[in-house]
Amino acid sequence: MISIDPKNIPTKDLHQYLLGIVAPRPIAFASTVDENGTPNLAPYSFFNAFSSNPPIVVFSSNRRVSDNTTKDTLHNIEKTGEVVINAVSHSILRQMAVASVQFPKEISEFSKSGLTPVDSDLVKPPRVLESPASMECVMKEIITLGKHGGAGHLIICEVVRIHIDERVVDGNRINPHKIDLMGRMGRAYYVRASGDAIHTVVQSVLDISIGFDQLPQEVQKSTVLTGNDLGLLAGLTQWPNKEEIEAQLSPEERLQIASLTEDRALPQLHYMAKNAIREGLIKKAASILAFQENFSK
Amino acid sequence: MISIDPKNIPTKDLHQYLLGIVAPRPIAFASTVDENGTPNLAPYSFFNAFSSNPPIVVFSSNRRVSDNTTKDTLHNIEKTGEVVINAVSHSILRQMAVASVQFPKEISEFSKSGLTPVDSDLVKPPRVLESPASMECVMKEIITLGKHGGAGHLIICEVVRIHIDERVVDGNRINPHKIDLMGRMGRAYYVRASGDAIHTVVQSVLDISIGFDQLPQEVQKSTVLTGNDLGLLAGLTQWPNKEEIEAQLSPEERLQIASLTEDRALPQLHYMAKNAIREGLIKKAASILAFQENFSK
Repeated sequence: MISIDPKNIPTKDLHQYLLGIVAPRPIAFASTVDENGTPNLAPYSFFNAFSSNPPIVVFSSNRRVSDNTTKDTLHNIEKTGEVVINAVSHSILRQMAVASVQFPKEISEFSKSGLTPVDSDLVKPPRVLESPASMECVMKEIITLGKHGGAGHLIICEVVRIHIDERVVDGNRINPHKIDLMGRMGRAYYVRASGDAIHTVVQSVLDISIGFDQLPQEVQKSTVLTGNDLGLLAGLTQWPNKEEIEAQLSPEERLQIASLTEDRALPQLHYMAKNAIREGLIKKAASILAFQENFSK
Repeated sequence: MISIDPKNIPTKDLHQYLLGIVAPRPIAFASTVDENGTPNLAPYSFFNAFSSNPPIVVFSSNRRVSDNTTKDTLHNIEKTGEVVINAVSHSILRQMAVASVQFPKEISEFSKSGLTPVDSDLVKPPRVLESPASMECVMKEIITLGKHGGAGHLIICEVVRIHIDERVVDGNRINPHKIDLMGRMGRAYYVRASGDAIHTVVQSVLDISIGFDQLPQEVQKSTVLTGNDLGLLAGLTQWPNKEEIEAQLSPEERLQIASLTEDRALPQLHYMAKNAIREGLIKKAASILAFQENFSK
């Protein structure tokens, strides 16, 4: 392991380490207006939701590491108390990149990015027509985190209206493949959060699972089964008994397992369980591994 | 568009909309100890970095929507003021899921998930050996965002020590493919932020780009070029002049374009530019589109 004391490395390097570790980050594509009504649009990835009741989102417009200046978005929110946070889908990624350019203050990033401003319902800044979802927000508080280049501000906002493109919603839940969001990584990297990159993890937090420590010793120490395989087994709420094993395994499979068990062919047994896990048959995998303790004479 | 007044829908639905829009979210796999030293380990995705100087990360342990109770992690940080935030790579995803189960307080999620506690340098909670990066943190402040189920707490932490597995670092920058982080989406969805899902966007924020409004009218209105195509063109710092066009296009290509231009075959010209964009040749694409204004008689 590399161990780093944040006080002993340049801010630029520390910044990049944080960006590389705290990822992928959601993007707040923030629309604001100045006191004259001139719109501004800029992406920020020090951003997240933090509460649903009340609905609170927080983002930071940081002091620039290069010259310790602050940004138009921050000035505008300090003046007007309002912001619209738009989501960034893959379809507008390159237009978002153009809006990140430091154009002079009087230039509208809407014109420069070719994105379309649409009047909001409750706040002055417009939302982005092409964005799959927008949140009209009222600033509650700004907390300043430092005075030097790289220092952040927590811009704490309450969501007062949400707009969602009906094409990205199934029932009353958002479909990640349809909303097709981009997340921010370190350096010039982004992640497209749809398609094969999406994984589903079903794990009830209320049903108490057996846990790794209750798996048989030789399973815990397996050189065949990975941490994820063991996690799936540990996530079961019950280790199979005789009855469950008979329900999960065919007579032929039981014969095969009995023979492997007799030969003490542990790796082969574990590979057999691993194949069941790959097919999503976790209870079957557990039954293969629980066979010996239930059926050996 | 679906428009939602957050005050007029059930917290559960509002919570899911926020989770679906504000995504992908980084995961804070938070290790804490109670006043007796009993360790706790739990994942939170209302989490991000917010400042690099000082290095500040913030996460929220929310009041449960179901029964308005608060969580062990929050109690432990209130008591001890310390937390280690571990990154979640794909390799420990299922073990993280087991740690998310609401085991009784006296049960260690380290034992249940099979993850290995390692002593920290500066704080009492252990870090996770199998995590590719860990941040030892000292709590600076906790801001309570509400009193009802779903209400968050901003747990504002300063990073005092960072540990990174040297295998995920190239030079002094983290490689997203090697750290292989998981991000949290809505419902049971996660995103794996590596491999083909990673996109690179190079856009200098300091060099002023020409912008969408300076593209030729017929390019702005193209039915062939997408928002991303136009964003790439708008992101150039200069629209090609005669000299640049001659450098970008072969004599054969110039003949072909001249003929398409003469025929007013705009879609075909735009498809030719689109192919250049697909090959990453943005200046060439712009040269195809700028040909007419520079060379037509």
